[in-house]
Amino acid sequence: MPGRTHTLVLLRHGQSAWNLENRFTGWWDVGLTCDGLTQARAAGERLAAADIKPDVVHTSLLRRAIRTAEATLEAMGRSWLPVRRHWRLNERHYGALTGLNKSEVAAQHGDAQVRTWRRSYDVAPPPMPLGHDFDVSDDPRYAELSDDDTPRTECLADVQARLLPYWRDHIASDLRAGRTVLVAAHGNSLRALVKHLDGIGDAEIAELDIPTGSPLVYELDAEAHVVAQCPLEDRYLR
Amino acid sequence: MPGRTHTLVLLRHGQSAWNLENRFTGWWDVGLTCDGLTQARAAGERLAAADIKPDVVHTSLLRRAIRTAEATLEAMGRSWLPVRRHWRLNERHYGALTGLNKSEVAAQHGDAQVRTWRRSYDVAPPPMPLGHDFDVSDDPRYAELSDDDTPRTECLADVQARLLPYWRDHIASDLRAGRTVLVAAHGNSLRALVKHLDGIGDAEIAELDIPTGSPLVYELDAEAHVVAQCPLEDRYLR
Repeated sequence: MPGRTHTLVLLRHGQSAWNLENRFTGWWDVGLTCDGLTQARAAGERLAAADIKPDVVHTSLLRRAIRTAEATLEAMGRSWLPVRRHWRLNERHYGALTGLNKSEVAAQHGDAQVRTWRRSYDVAPPPMPLGHDFDVSDDPRYAELSDDDTPRTECLADVQARLLPYWRDHIASDLRAGRTVLVAAHGNSLRALVKHLDGIGDAEIAELDIPTGSPLVYELDAEAHVVAQCPLEDRYLR
Repeated sequence: MPGRTHTLVLLRHGQSAWNLENRFTGWWDVGLTCDGLTQARAAGERLAAADIKPDVVHTSLLRRAIRTAEATLEAMGRSWLPVRRHWRLNERHYGALTGLNKSEVAAQHGDAQVRTWRRSYDVAPPPMPLGHDFDVSDDPRYAELSDDDTPRTECLADVQARLLPYWRDHIASDLRAGRTVLVAAHGNSLRALVKHLDGIGDAEIAELDIPTGSPLVYELDAEAHVVAQCPLEDRYLR
Protein backbone atom coordinates (compact mmCIF):
# COMPACT_ATOMS: atom_id res chain seq x y z
CA MET A 1 0.00 0.00 0.00
CA PRO A 2 1.49 3.36 -0.93
CA GLY A 3 2.02 5.78 1.95
CA ARG A 4 0.30 9.11 2.22
CA THR A 5 1.73 11.68 -0.17
CA HIS A 6 2.77 15.21 0.71
CA THR A 7 1.92 18.29 -1.32
CA LEU A 8 4.39 20.97 -2.37
CA VAL A 9 3.22 24.10 -4.17
CA LEU A 10 5.78 26.23 -6.01
CA LEU A 11 4.70 29.75 -6.88
CA ARG A 12 6.71 32.29 -8.84
CA HIS A 13 5.84 35.83 -7.68
CA GLY A 14 3.30 37.85 -9.67
CA GLN A 15 4.42 40.39 -12.25
CA SER A 16 6.95 42.83 -10.79
CA ALA A 17 7.70 46.40 -11.81
CA TRP A 18 10.82 45.21 -13.60
CA ASN A 19 9.11 42.26 -15.28
CA LEU A 20 6.91 44.94 -16.80
CA GLU A 21 9.89 47.13 -17.75
CA ASN A 22 11.75 44.09 -19.14
CA ARG A 23 14.79 44.63 -16.91
CA PHE A 24 17.12 42.10 -15.29
CA THR A 25 16.18 42.17 -11.59
CA GLY A 26 18.10 39.52 -9.66
CA TRP A 27 18.60 40.59 -6.03
CA TRP A 28 17.26 44.13 -6.56
CA ASP A 29 14.13 44.46 -4.43
CA VAL A 30 11.33 45.71 -6.70
CA GLY A 31 7.63 45.52 -5.82
CA LEU A 32 4.70 43.90 -7.60
CA THR A 33 2.59 45.69 -10.15
CA CYS A 34 -1.18 45.87 -9.64
CA ASP A 35 -1.47 43.02 -12.15
CA GLY A 36 1.09 41.07 -10.14
CA LEU A 37 -0.93 41.49 -6.97
CA THR A 38 -4.06 40.37 -8.84
CA GLN A 39 -2.18 37.28 -10.07
CA ALA A 40 -1.17 36.46 -6.48
CA ARG A 41 -4.76 36.72 -5.25
CA ALA A 42 -5.96 34.58 -8.16
CA ALA A 43 -3.36 31.95 -7.26
CA GLY A 44 -4.80 31.83 -3.73
CA GLU A 45 -8.32 31.47 -5.09
CA ARG A 46 -7.23 28.62 -7.36
CA LEU A 47 -5.49 26.82 -4.52
CA ALA A 48 -8.57 27.22 -2.33
CA ALA A 49 -10.82 25.94 -5.14
CA ALA A 50 -8.53 22.90 -5.48
CA ASP A 51 -8.79 22.36 -1.70
CA ILE A 52 -5.02 22.64 -1.32
CA LYS A 53 -4.36 24.03 2.16
CA PRO A 54 -0.76 24.93 2.93
CA ASP A 55 0.38 24.52 6.53
CA VAL A 56 3.54 26.60 6.19
CA VAL A 57 5.00 29.04 3.67
CA HIS A 58 8.60 29.66 2.68
CA THR A 59 9.68 32.85 0.89
CA SER A 60 12.84 34.56 -0.26
CA LEU A 61 13.95 37.86 1.30
CA LEU A 62 12.64 39.82 -1.70
CA ARG A 63 9.37 41.66 -1.41
CA ARG A 64 7.93 40.56 -4.75
CA ALA A 65 7.89 36.99 -3.41
CA ILE A 66 6.91 38.05 0.13
CA ARG A 67 3.98 40.17 -1.07
CA THR A 68 2.90 37.37 -3.41
CA ALA A 69 2.83 34.94 -0.48
CA GLU A 70 0.89 37.43 1.66
CA ALA A 71 -1.73 38.12 -1.00
CA THR A 72 -2.05 34.44 -1.96
CA LEU A 73 -2.61 33.42 1.66
CA GLU A 74 -4.97 36.31 2.32
CA ALA A 75 -7.12 35.18 -0.64
CA MET A 76 -7.24 31.69 0.96
CA GLY A 77 -8.05 32.96 4.47
CA ARG A 78 -4.71 31.54 5.66
CA SER A 79 -2.72 34.70 6.52
CA TRP A 80 -2.05 33.11 9.91
CA LEU A 81 0.30 30.43 8.55
CA PRO A 82 3.82 30.27 9.92
CA VAL A 83 6.25 31.96 7.50
CA ARG A 84 9.92 31.18 6.97
CA ARG A 85 12.16 33.42 4.85
CA HIS A 86 15.66 32.80 3.55
CA TRP A 87 18.10 34.37 1.13
CA ARG A 88 18.71 30.88 -0.31
CA LEU A 89 15.30 31.18 -2.02
CA ASN A 90 16.25 34.54 -3.61
CA GLU A 91 16.26 35.03 -7.36
CA ARG A 92 19.50 34.27 -9.18
CA HIS A 93 21.95 37.20 -8.82
CA TYR A 94 22.19 38.77 -12.27
CA GLY A 95 25.62 40.34 -11.75
CA ALA A 96 26.50 43.30 -13.98
CA LEU A 97 23.25 42.83 -15.93
CA THR A 98 21.13 43.87 -12.92
CA GLY A 99 18.95 46.84 -13.82
CA LEU A 100 19.63 46.67 -17.57
CA ASN A 101 16.87 46.39 -20.14
CA LYS A 102 16.86 42.91 -21.71
CA SER A 103 16.23 44.23 -25.24
CA GLU A 104 19.07 46.72 -24.97
CA VAL A 105 21.43 44.03 -23.72
CA ALA A 106 20.32 41.82 -26.64
CA ALA A 107 20.97 44.65 -29.11
CA GLN A 108 24.48 45.02 -27.70
CA HIS A 109 25.47 41.39 -27.09
CA GLY A 110 23.13 39.45 -29.39
CA ASP A 111 20.12 37.25 -28.67
CA ALA A 112 22.19 34.09 -28.34
CA GLN A 113 24.39 35.55 -25.61
CA VAL A 114 21.39 36.89 -23.70
CA ARG A 115 19.66 33.53 -23.99
CA THR A 116 22.77 31.82 -22.64
CA TRP A 117 22.92 34.22 -19.69
CA ARG A 118 19.20 33.80 -19.00
CA ARG A 119 18.60 30.10 -19.52
CA SER A 120 21.85 28.11 -19.46
CA TYR A 121 22.81 25.98 -16.50
CA ASP A 122 26.42 26.98 -15.99
CA VAL A 123 27.17 30.34 -17.62
CA ALA A 124 26.98 33.31 -15.26
CA PRO A 125 26.68 36.96 -16.38
CA PRO A 126 29.73 39.18 -15.72
CA PRO A 127 30.11 39.90 -12.00
CA MET A 128 28.62 43.06 -10.52
CA PRO A 129 31.39 45.62 -10.00
CA LEU A 130 31.82 47.25 -6.57
CA GLY A 131 29.87 50.49 -6.28
CA HIS A 132 27.22 49.34 -8.80
CA ASP A 133 23.92 51.25 -8.49
CA PHE A 134 22.03 48.04 -7.70
CA ASP A 135 24.52 46.45 -5.31
CA VAL A 136 22.67 45.16 -2.24
CA SER A 137 25.53 43.37 -0.52
CA ASP A 138 25.48 45.86 2.39
CA ASP A 139 21.74 45.55 2.96
CA PRO A 140 21.00 44.57 6.58
CA ARG A 141 18.88 41.61 5.47
CA TYR A 142 22.10 39.96 4.27
CA ALA A 143 24.07 40.71 7.42
CA GLU A 144 24.44 37.01 8.23
CA LEU A 145 26.11 36.25 4.88
CA SER A 146 29.89 36.19 4.86
CA ASP A 147 31.61 38.00 2.02
CA ASP A 148 32.37 34.59 0.53
CA ASP A 149 28.71 33.62 0.48
CA THR A 150 27.49 36.94 -0.97
CA PRO A 151 27.21 36.48 -4.74
CA ARG A 152 28.44 39.05 -7.28
CA THR A 153 26.81 36.98 -10.04
CA GLU A 154 25.29 33.53 -10.32
CA CYS A 155 24.60 30.89 -12.94
CA LEU A 156 21.75 28.43 -12.38
CA ALA A 157 24.20 25.84 -11.03
CA ASP A 158 25.27 28.38 -8.37
CA VAL A 159 21.63 28.95 -7.43
CA GLN A 160 21.04 25.22 -7.15
CA ALA A 161 24.11 24.81 -4.93
CA ARG A 162 22.94 27.46 -2.45
CA LEU A 163 19.28 26.49 -2.63
CA LEU A 164 19.50 22.73 -2.06
CA PRO A 165 20.71 22.94 1.57
CA TYR A 166 17.60 24.98 2.38
CA TRP A 167 15.41 22.57 0.45
CA ARG A 168 16.82 19.61 2.38
CA ASP A 169 16.96 21.13 5.87
CA HIS A 170 13.76 23.18 5.88
CA ILE A 171 11.32 22.54 3.02
CA ALA A 172 11.77 18.78 2.65
CA SER A 173 11.79 18.42 6.43
CA ASP A 174 8.42 20.23 6.61
CA LEU A 175 7.06 17.87 3.95
CA ARG A 176 8.37 14.80 5.79
CA ALA A 177 6.64 16.11 8.92
CA GLY A 178 3.36 15.85 7.00
CA ARG A 179 2.92 19.54 6.19
CA THR A 180 1.60 20.90 2.92
CA VAL A 181 4.18 23.50 1.88
CA LEU A 182 3.90 26.65 -0.23
CA VAL A 183 7.15 28.11 -1.61
CA ALA A 184 6.83 31.64 -2.98
CA ALA A 185 10.02 32.43 -4.87
CA HIS A 186 11.47 33.35 -8.26
CA GLY A 187 11.86 32.25 -11.87
CA ASN A 188 15.37 30.94 -11.44
CA SER A 189 15.33 29.72 -7.84
CA LEU A 190 12.25 27.68 -8.80
CA ARG A 191 13.90 26.47 -12.04
CA ALA A 192 16.76 25.18 -9.90
CA LEU A 193 14.34 23.40 -7.57
CA VAL A 194 12.26 21.93 -10.42
CA LYS A 195 15.48 20.71 -12.08
CA HIS A 196 16.32 18.86 -8.88
CA LEU A 197 12.81 17.46 -8.27
CA ASP A 198 12.15 16.32 -11.83
CA GLY A 199 15.73 15.31 -12.59
CA ILE A 200 15.96 17.61 -15.61
CA GLY A 201 19.28 17.53 -17.47
CA ASP A 202 21.74 20.44 -17.65
CA ALA A 203 20.97 21.02 -21.34
CA GLU A 204 17.20 20.48 -21.12
CA ILE A 205 16.77 23.03 -18.33
CA ALA A 206 17.40 25.78 -20.93
CA GLU A 207 13.91 25.09 -22.29
CA LEU A 208 12.19 25.67 -18.97
CA ASP A 209 10.56 29.00 -18.16
CA ILE A 210 8.20 29.29 -15.19
CA PRO A 211 5.36 31.81 -15.60
CA THR A 212 4.50 34.35 -12.89
CA GLY A 213 1.64 33.64 -10.51
CA SER A 214 0.86 30.05 -11.63
CA PRO A 215 0.97 27.44 -8.84
CA LEU A 216 2.96 24.26 -9.68
CA VAL A 217 1.78 21.31 -7.58
CA TYR A 218 3.99 18.32 -6.67
CA GLU A 219 3.04 15.17 -4.82
CA LEU A 220 5.98 13.75 -2.88
CA ASP A 221 6.56 10.55 -0.96
CA ALA A 222 7.76 10.16 2.62
CA GLU A 223 11.35 10.75 1.48
CA ALA A 224 10.34 13.97 -0.32
CA HIS A 225 10.84 12.38 -3.73
CA VAL A 226 8.40 13.03 -6.55
CA VAL A 227 5.70 10.34 -6.62
CA ALA A 228 4.79 10.43 -10.29
CA GLN A 229 6.90 11.94 -13.04
CA CYS A 230 4.75 13.83 -15.49
CA PRO A 231 5.15 16.63 -18.02
CA LEU A 232 5.69 19.88 -16.17
CA GLU A 233 2.67 21.49 -17.83
CA ASP A 234 0.48 18.91 -16.09
CA ARG A 235 1.66 20.20 -12.72
CA TYR A 236 0.20 23.69 -13.19
CA LEU A 237 -3.02 24.16 -11.31
CA ARG A 238 -5.82 24.69 -13.84
CA MET B 1 27.75 52.94 33.05
CA PRO B 2 24.28 51.94 31.92
CA GLY B 3 24.15 49.12 29.38
CA ARG B 4 22.73 49.43 25.93
CA THR B 5 18.94 49.61 25.90
CA HIS B 6 16.62 47.55 23.73
CA THR B 7 13.65 48.91 21.82
CA LEU B 8 10.18 47.39 21.85
CA VAL B 9 7.43 48.81 19.63
CA LEU B 10 3.81 47.90 20.37
CA LEU B 11 1.33 48.52 17.59
CA ARG B 12 -2.42 47.98 17.78
CA HIS B 13 -3.78 47.02 14.33
CA GLY B 14 -5.32 49.74 12.16
CA GLN B 15 -9.08 50.25 12.03
CA SER B 16 -10.90 46.98 11.31
CA ALA B 17 -14.28 46.45 9.65
CA TRP B 18 -15.82 45.82 13.05
CA ASN B 19 -14.11 48.77 14.72
CA LEU B 20 -15.96 50.80 12.10
CA GLU B 21 -19.24 48.96 12.73
CA ASN B 22 -18.77 49.31 16.52
CA ARG B 23 -19.06 45.56 17.13
CA PHE B 24 -17.30 43.37 19.69
CA THR B 25 -14.74 41.41 17.66
CA GLY B 26 -12.57 39.28 19.93
CA TRP B 27 -11.31 36.18 18.11
CA TRP B 28 -13.47 36.72 15.01
CA ASP B 29 -11.14 37.30 12.09
CA VAL B 30 -12.21 40.54 10.38
CA GLY B 31 -10.05 42.48 7.94
CA LEU B 32 -8.79 46.06 7.98
CA THR B 33 -10.71 48.93 6.41
CA CYS B 34 -8.95 51.09 3.81
CA ASP B 35 -8.40 53.64 6.58
CA GLY B 36 -6.90 50.90 8.75
CA LEU B 37 -4.45 49.98 6.00
CA THR B 38 -3.52 53.64 5.61
CA GLN B 39 -2.92 53.85 9.38
CA ALA B 40 -0.62 50.83 9.19
CA ARG B 41 1.43 52.36 6.36
CA ALA B 42 1.62 55.66 8.24
CA ALA B 43 2.91 53.82 11.31
CA GLY B 44 5.70 52.35 9.18
CA GLU B 45 6.59 55.78 7.82
CA ARG B 46 6.71 57.23 11.35
CA LEU B 47 8.94 54.42 12.58
CA ALA B 48 11.25 54.91 9.59
CA ALA B 49 11.35 58.68 10.19
CA ALA B 50 12.29 58.01 13.84
CA ASP B 51 15.04 55.64 12.63
CA ILE B 52 13.53 52.74 14.57
CA LYS B 53 14.41 49.56 12.68
CA PRO B 54 12.77 46.38 13.94
CA ASP B 55 14.76 43.16 13.55
CA VAL B 56 11.83 40.81 14.14
CA VAL B 57 8.05 41.06 14.26
CA HIS B 58 5.55 39.15 16.40
CA THR B 59 1.85 39.02 15.48
CA SER B 60 -1.32 37.31 16.64
CA LEU B 61 -3.10 34.77 14.41
CA LEU B 62 -5.70 37.36 13.39
CA ARG B 63 -5.46 39.00 10.00
CA ARG B 64 -6.12 42.56 11.17
CA ALA B 65 -2.85 42.39 13.13
CA ILE B 66 -1.04 40.36 10.46
CA ARG B 67 -1.99 42.75 7.66
CA THR B 68 -1.06 45.72 9.85
CA ALA B 69 2.40 44.23 10.38
CA GLU B 70 2.80 43.52 6.67
CA ALA B 71 1.79 47.05 5.61
CA THR B 72 3.87 48.70 8.35
CA LEU B 73 6.97 46.75 7.36
CA GLU B 74 6.37 47.30 3.65
CA ALA B 75 6.25 51.07 4.28
CA MET B 76 9.63 50.76 6.05
CA GLY B 77 11.23 48.59 3.34
CA ARG B 78 11.52 45.76 5.88
CA SER B 79 9.08 43.16 4.56
CA TRP B 80 11.94 40.65 4.79
CA LEU B 81 11.97 40.56 8.60
CA PRO B 82 11.46 37.22 10.32
CA VAL B 83 7.86 36.91 11.53
CA ARG B 84 6.54 34.93 14.50
CA ARG B 85 2.82 34.43 15.10
CA HIS B 86 1.03 33.07 18.13
CA TRP B 87 -2.52 32.78 19.44
CA ARG B 88 -1.26 34.11 22.80
CA LEU B 89 -1.09 37.57 21.16
CA ASN B 90 -4.73 37.34 20.00
CA GLU B 91 -7.32 39.85 21.09
CA ARG B 92 -9.24 39.09 24.28
CA HIS B 93 -12.02 36.55 23.57
CA TYR B 94 -15.28 38.47 23.94
CA GLY B 95 -17.46 35.44 24.72
CA ALA B 96 -21.18 35.79 24.03
CA LEU B 97 -20.69 39.48 23.14
CA THR B 98 -18.73 38.59 19.98
CA GLY B 99 -20.40 40.09 16.93
CA LEU B 100 -22.82 42.30 18.88
CA ASN B 101 -23.06 46.04 18.40
CA LYS B 102 -21.61 47.86 21.41
CA SER B 103 -24.38 50.49 21.45
CA GLU B 104 -27.10 47.86 21.32
CA VAL B 105 -25.48 45.92 24.16
CA ALA B 106 -25.28 49.17 26.16
CA ALA B 107 -28.97 49.87 25.51
CA GLN B 108 -29.82 46.43 26.82
CA HIS B 109 -27.38 46.08 29.74
CA GLY B 110 -26.48 49.69 30.56
CA ASP B 111 -23.31 51.69 30.00
CA ALA B 112 -21.81 50.72 33.34
CA GLN B 113 -22.04 46.98 32.61
CA VAL B 114 -20.57 47.42 29.13
CA ARG B 115 -17.74 49.51 30.56
CA THR B 116 -17.03 46.79 33.11
CA TRP B 117 -16.95 44.12 30.39
CA ARG B 118 -14.72 46.26 28.18
CA ARG B 119 -12.27 47.80 30.60
CA SER B 120 -12.21 45.97 33.94
CA TYR B 121 -9.34 43.68 34.85
CA ASP B 122 -11.20 40.65 36.16
CA VAL B 123 -14.79 40.59 34.89
CA ALA B 124 -15.33 38.45 31.79
CA PRO B 125 -18.37 38.67 29.50
CA PRO B 126 -20.74 35.67 29.53
CA PRO B 127 -19.15 32.65 27.82
CA MET B 128 -19.81 31.97 24.16
CA PRO B 129 -22.39 29.18 23.85
CA LEU B 130 -21.62 26.14 21.69
CA GLY B 131 -22.83 26.59 18.12
CA HIS B 132 -22.47 30.41 18.26
CA ASP B 133 -22.24 32.04 14.83
CA PHE B 134 -18.80 33.44 15.62
CA ASP B 135 -17.29 30.40 17.33
CA VAL B 136 -13.79 29.78 15.93
CA SER B 137 -12.71 27.00 18.26
CA ASP B 138 -12.62 24.46 15.38
CA ASP B 139 -10.54 26.69 13.12
CA PRO B 140 -7.38 24.84 11.99
CA ARG B 141 -5.17 27.71 13.19
CA TYR B 142 -6.08 26.71 16.76
CA ALA B 143 -5.50 22.98 16.22
CA GLU B 144 -2.64 22.95 18.74
CA LEU B 145 -4.83 24.31 21.56
CA SER B 146 -6.35 21.77 23.89
CA ASP B 147 -10.03 22.20 24.73
CA ASP B 148 -8.90 23.42 28.16
CA ASP B 149 -6.76 26.17 26.62
CA THR B 150 -9.40 27.33 24.13
CA PRO B 151 -11.24 30.25 25.69
CA ARG B 152 -15.03 30.65 25.62
CA THR B 153 -14.63 34.13 27.13
CA GLU B 154 -11.79 36.09 28.73
CA CYS B 155 -11.30 38.95 31.16
CA LEU B 156 -8.10 41.02 30.94
CA ALA B 157 -6.52 38.93 33.71
CA ASP B 158 -7.09 35.81 31.57
CA VAL B 159 -5.43 37.53 28.62
CA GLN B 160 -2.47 38.51 30.77
CA ALA B 161 -2.11 34.94 32.06
CA ARG B 162 -1.95 33.43 28.56
CA LEU B 163 0.12 36.27 27.09
CA LEU B 164 2.94 36.50 29.63
CA PRO B 165 4.49 33.08 28.85
CA TYR B 166 4.85 34.21 25.23
CA TRP B 167 6.26 37.57 26.32
CA ARG B 168 8.85 35.88 28.50
CA ASP B 169 9.87 33.02 26.21
CA HIS B 170 9.78 34.77 22.83
CA ILE B 171 9.49 38.56 22.88
CA ALA B 172 11.66 39.31 25.93
CA SER B 173 14.17 36.71 24.75
CA ASP B 174 14.43 38.49 21.39
CA LEU B 175 15.00 41.79 23.23
CA ARG B 176 17.67 40.26 25.47
CA ALA B 177 19.38 38.96 22.31
CA GLY B 178 19.73 42.61 21.24
CA ARG B 179 16.92 42.70 18.71
CA THR B 180 14.55 45.61 18.19
CA VAL B 181 11.09 44.04 18.34
CA LEU B 182 7.77 45.05 16.76
CA VAL B 183 4.62 43.49 18.23
CA ALA B 184 1.50 43.93 16.09
CA ALA B 185 -1.49 42.94 18.17
CA HIS B 186 -4.76 44.12 19.70
CA GLY B 187 -6.34 46.60 22.08
CA ASN B 188 -6.62 44.18 24.95
CA SER B 189 -3.60 41.94 24.42
CA LEU B 190 -1.53 45.15 24.35
CA ARG B 191 -3.32 46.55 27.41
CA ALA B 192 -2.33 43.36 29.25
CA LEU B 193 1.28 43.75 28.15
CA VAL B 194 1.42 47.47 29.00
CA LYS B 195 -0.05 46.69 32.42
CA HIS B 196 2.79 44.26 33.01
CA LEU B 197 5.55 46.51 31.62
CA ASP B 198 4.46 49.70 33.39
CA GLY B 199 3.21 48.01 36.55
CA ILE B 200 -0.27 49.50 36.24
CA GLY B 201 -2.71 48.54 39.02
CA ASP B 202 -5.81 46.38 38.53
CA ALA B 203 -8.12 49.37 39.06
CA GLU B 204 -6.06 51.90 37.08
CA ILE B 205 -5.95 49.72 33.95
CA ALA B 206 -9.65 50.52 33.41
CA GLU B 207 -8.56 54.02 32.31
CA LEU B 208 -6.26 52.73 29.58
CA ASP B 209 -7.38 52.58 25.97
CA ILE B 210 -4.82 52.06 23.20
CA PRO B 211 -5.62 53.74 19.87
CA THR B 212 -5.37 51.90 16.54
CA GLY B 213 -2.25 52.32 14.41
CA SER B 214 -0.16 54.40 16.85
CA PRO B 215 3.25 52.93 17.71
CA LEU B 216 4.11 52.81 21.43
CA VAL B 217 7.86 52.77 22.01
CA TYR B 218 9.54 51.24 25.09
CA GLU B 219 13.21 51.24 26.02
CA LEU B 220 14.14 48.17 28.05
CA ASP B 221 17.24 47.09 29.89
CA ALA B 222 19.18 43.84 29.54
CA GLU B 223 16.62 42.09 31.74
CA ALA B 224 13.73 43.36 29.55
CA HIS B 225 12.56 45.73 32.27
CA VAL B 226 11.42 49.25 31.40
CA VAL B 227 14.33 51.70 31.67
CA ALA B 228 12.44 54.88 32.47
CA GLN B 229 8.88 55.05 33.74
CA CYS B 230 6.99 57.84 32.05
CA PRO B 231 3.39 58.75 31.26
CA LEU B 232 2.07 56.39 28.62
CA GLU B 233 1.21 59.29 26.32
CA ASP B 234 4.92 60.11 26.13
CA ARG B 235 5.57 56.66 24.65
CA TYR B 236 3.50 57.26 21.51
CA LEU B 237 5.64 58.05 18.52
CA ARG B 238 4.91 61.61 17.43
